[in-house]
Amino acid sequence: MRWKCTVAYDGTDFEGWQSQPSKNTVQDHLERRLAFLFKRDVRVHGSGRTDSGVHANAQVFHFDGEWKWAPEDLLKALRVGYPDSIQVYRAERVSDDFHARFSAVGKRYVYHFYEGFAGPFDYRWHWSLGHWRLDLDRVNEAAQQLIGKHDFAPFSANPRDGREESTVKDLRRLEVVRNGRHLTLVTEASGYLFRMVRSLAGCLVNVGIGRLSQDDLREILECGVRTERVVTAPARGLFLDRVYYEGHDTPDPDPTKIVFGGPAHSPWQGEGR
Amino acid sequence: MRWKCTVAYDGTDFEGWQSQPSKNTVQDHLERRLAFLFKRDVRVHGSGRTDSGVHANAQVFHFDGEWKWAPEDLLKALRVGYPDSIQVYRAERVSDDFHARFSAVGKRYVYHFYEGFAGPFDYRWHWSLGHWRLDLDRVNEAAQQLIGKHDFAPFSANPRDGREESTVKDLRRLEVVRNGRHLTLVTEASGYLFRMVRSLAGCLVNVGIGRLSQDDLREILECGVRTERVVTAPARGLFLDRVYYEGHDTPDPDPTKIVFGGPAHSPWQGEGR
Repeated sequence: MRWKCTVAYDGTDFEGWQSQPSKNTVQDHLERRLAFLFKRDVRVHGSGRTDSGVHANAQVFHFDGEWKWAPEDLLKALRVGYPDSIQVYRAERVSDDFHARFSAVGKRYVYHFYEGFAGPFDYRWHWSLGHWRLDLDRVNEAAQQLIGKHDFAPFSANPRDGREESTVKDLRRLEVVRNGRHLTLVTEASGYLFRMVRSLAGCLVNVGIGRLSQDDLREILECGVRTERVVTAPARGLFLDRVYYEGHDTPDPDPTKIVFGGPAHSPWQGEGR
Repeated sequence: MRWKCTVAYDGTDFEGWQSQPSKNTVQDHLERRLAFLFKRDVRVHGSGRTDSGVHANAQVFHFDGEWKWAPEDLLKALRVGYPDSIQVYRAERVSDDFHARFSAVGKRYVYHFYEGFAGPFDYRWHWSLGHWRLDLDRVNEAAQQLIGKHDFAPFSANPRDGREESTVKDLRRLEVVRNGRHLTLVTEASGYLFRMVRSLAGCLVNVGIGRLSQDDLREILECGVRTERVVTAPARGLFLDRVYYEGHDTPDPDPTKIVFGGPAHSPWQGEGR
């Protein structure tokens, strides 16, 4: 029996998604809970990793396990048993050929900026831009040049495990929207390279404050390798917001309809949890 | 030179407001920073204490210190130098007869409930009510009976230091408003007893789910002493939202205009920080 689950987490206190010797990663917490429920080791397969400090509104993972009771009861059992900063909020039976990583056809990330210094209740989820003010017309015009299939190697850092994968990705959406002093970058792509969203976010901020021109951004894309002109935005602003699968669609709230930084547009709003 | 300051904090990681031997209270953090800035011990006088785990959108404190530069520079210096979960966002020169505690003529608290289980991004600021659903007509009708000058001893716990003060308080506002599954209790009074807001919140939840009737609530008020019928709501939902002073008025956003639990209506919204 294969199960597809959706989990939200505040990444602040974890060493990323992927299992580590410290055992303080989101995957480790999930696997500990599943081992308890199924009385054996259960391997969790995520749609991909998130770095230390990165959050998720809707990370997807699958696992195999024989569950004799109703699916709702599995979800109830999966809602509890972790730190409060992890919450599994969807669990559905899927066919055995579903794979959280290999079946994914795209992903959406959001990145939150705050023009000013984020306060005690939102600093965990924003890059505080201090006195910088972004010119979003410039930013969004520059971002349009990156849409489409490109080699995004200039916007990645080396994966730590040296995994080989194509550096050509299909970028379908890249825009920054404003809600007062809260700015949200939304991006959708077929896939992402290591630190790609944070590198794009860093570059677009530099475009927004005038340190990079639109031509500079195109040159960076075309030069083929990462240079020091590409800066990486801090992890804390980044959320894995949605993983797309063929035929597995769930309601998809518009991430630009935010009223308050990170949490407000998360799947928590109005969900029957 | 006397300074009146306003500070917001996420109380989750602190042992309350008032200085403790552990030195991990909000007052301790403020005094450490002031000692650094003024090169001597500086005593911080708060408008009152908040318990361990209780938050503040706008706690007020005063201190005395000779500052040779512009007041804006004092604020700049006071904005930094603490954990991110503390932020001082207002500092103004006041006359020497101003006292953060004794000059206060009233206070407003808000308390946040969530019908369901608050997620990773809001659990710090809500009492998660699980499957309980509150009948707010019942709650608000019952709450009206408590408005006015009463002896609120039944709704307090013993202050830890045995401080003697009148248990008669003038309760000016007590209501719960709904925004989807987020519920916010708003209360204004001349002053509060130890754990009074959390005791009122606990009782009103019991009224809302039918465990207490409106008559029960009046009986509790009239019996004069605390009994086991009064339960204390958890600290995490409680925010000190505003301290009122004669002639020291600053813009006062309506705490019922919330869009997302605790943080959304905080003074951070739209402030020039």
